[in-house]
Amino acid sequence: MSELRKDPVVDRWVIITEDPALSPDIRENSPEERGKDAGVPFCPFCPGNEHLCPPEILANRPGSSLANDRYWNLRVIPNRSPLLMVEEDLKRLGEGIYDKVTGVGANEVIIETRNHVSRQADMRLDELENLFWAYRDRIIDLKKDRRMRYILIYKNNGAPAGATLEHPYSLLLALPIVPRDITEELQGAQKHYDYKERCIYCDIIRQEIQLEIRIIAETGSFLAVEPFAPRVPFETWIIPKRHSCRYEDIEPKEVGECAGIFREVLSRLDRALNKPPYNYVLHNAPLDSACEKFYHWHMEILPRVGVPTGLEVGSDLYVHSTMPEDAASFLKNILV
Amino acid sequence: MSELRKDPVVDRWVIITEDPALSPDIRENSPEERGKDAGVPFCPFCPGNEHLCPPEILANRPGSSLANDRYWNLRVIPNRSPLLMVEEDLKRLGEGIYDKVTGVGANEVIIETRNHVSRQADMRLDELENLFWAYRDRIIDLKKDRRMRYILIYKNNGAPAGATLEHPYSLLLALPIVPRDITEELQGAQKHYDYKERCIYCDIIRQEIQLEIRIIAETGSFLAVEPFAPRVPFETWIIPKRHSCRYEDIEPKEVGECAGIFREVLSRLDRALNKPPYNYVLHNAPLDSACEKFYHWHMEILPRVGVPTGLEVGSDLYVHSTMPEDAASFLKNILV
Repeated sequence: MSELRKDPVVDRWVIITEDPALSPDIRENSPEERGKDAGVPFCPFCPGNEHLCPPEILANRPGSSLANDRYWNLRVIPNRSPLLMVEEDLKRLGEGIYDKVTGVGANEVIIETRNHVSRQADMRLDELENLFWAYRDRIIDLKKDRRMRYILIYKNNGAPAGATLEHPYSLLLALPIVPRDITEELQGAQKHYDYKERCIYCDIIRQEIQLEIRIIAETGSFLAVEPFAPRVPFETWIIPKRHSCRYEDIEPKEVGECAGIFREVLSRLDRALNKPPYNYVLHNAPLDSACEKFYHWHMEILPRVGVPTGLEVGSDLYVHSTMPEDAASFLKNILV
Repeated sequence: MSELRKDPVVDRWVIITEDPALSPDIRENSPEERGKDAGVPFCPFCPGNEHLCPPEILANRPGSSLANDRYWNLRVIPNRSPLLMVEEDLKRLGEGIYDKVTGVGANEVIIETRNHVSRQADMRLDELENLFWAYRDRIIDLKKDRRMRYILIYKNNGAPAGATLEHPYSLLLALPIVPRDITEELQGAQKHYDYKERCIYCDIIRQEIQLEIRIIAETGSFLAVEPFAPRVPFETWIIPKRHSCRYEDIEPKEVGECAGIFREVLSRLDRALNKPPYNYVLHNAPLDSACEKFYHWHMEILPRVGVPTGLEVGSDLYVHSTMPEDAASFLKNILV
């Protein structure tokens, strides 16, 4: 059984799994094994190998197909070595001055497409739309479990970004805690709202549209922008223009636009950085938070160029030499 | 000229250098180049190559030697491609809703020993004592510049941890801002103090000594302990037992003990993890902060095992499968 532990000084959590069971498919839980065998010739996520994976939780399938058969467009399965499990009892425990929580939650793998491509930029638009619908559907389903505080959806692409397989997959964690980066976004956004009575992300959108210098792509509903203080070169955010704290409230028209701007951004990054490994994280409202007025969901895409040093890993101070204005201008002018 | 930019929502800073000048020695400022040529056969930090480095700022030398000659024990030099420069004017500027600061500061390289060894665990105790004195002396000198808010001392060992050379060196940044991890430690420690009127680190020390299960080594003045919620397997903290928020107030007797426990910890980590790459960061009080009562300096050592995924880099949530109690027991039982 795994355990969530909180640092006693800062609001930072770690999931420590007891059993480093090294399953043949997903083993994000063992850092020693991460990224070791991306690109193996045999792929458990390809059609025909469904029997090698746990039974599906959700699938996008043609009407004539059956659960777990090979005729699917997208599948969601439990992680074979789950970091957290819904079957556990939720207990919030003290250990002297320390706090821990039993490893209750869910850990799912979203197999994004039946096609074994290595880059999301090479996926079809309808496949990416399926993916963004799946994110929504899993959040709506999992938030029924009132023990959960946050649903974290993220992506590792490429071995240096922590991926263990090449076949496109996203990861989902339903958590009984809120990750530190989200907690602090909430606090920062609330502080801004208390002072100005405006959403800070709406302010960012307004200023970026007015300045234009950090915008990479824009649709009626979305903005793709290099943030003012990027942690890494070519960090890119996709922000909905409509104020909404919850991704799962996305509208049908927006799903299509989101897929479109997402693919455009990834295509430009692939061209600019020669298909870099990358991570992205969907930043969404915690499930039980009354943050409707001041929080604003968005996606943060982090290309993995270079090695983080003691600065980044040890003090959360970032250093690089790429001004976001230069990155935006470079990305915008690439022909895709 | 470089620039410090603050994320508009969370209290996170990035240093963006304008010129990615790739000097042959230290180039931490270009993530693309980091870690590329560790272990090159020619070493600019070895005795006899002083003319290839900028002139020394501080050195530990025998009485008969001259500045910048080859007879030294430890040298501190400016980084050839400094991330920040003291010659700049400090300006705190707004850009609409955003905040930035001109790249004022200092960026120094501490060449820890004349001996080209690859591991600090292989350094002599007197060499490590010199190193800990040098940390103190540079802080005391640099804090005279009232524009500075924080002096960050850190180490990258091995290419996967961001080192660019094998010869042992530490890095120092004098900053006009406080890094996020320190800001938040201060906030967390202050909250605890406001509530309990006790230092949280002193509470940690008391509890760890009582429980014993996470202690690796102990001297009269120091404790080496696996933290309750380690970010990575075998993360280790060295904490002085005497409450003190400022490293630079370290006493002569403590410097020797610190060198001793530090070498013991690194030797055990080297044996346990087969000489892993690692980073450490000296966590010290900000220069202008009245945190004497509630803050407590310490060192955090982070072995680099495995690849951080979207969880770690994108939401500051950590996952691994090594309980700190198991790591402590394993480390303690290694013969060194």
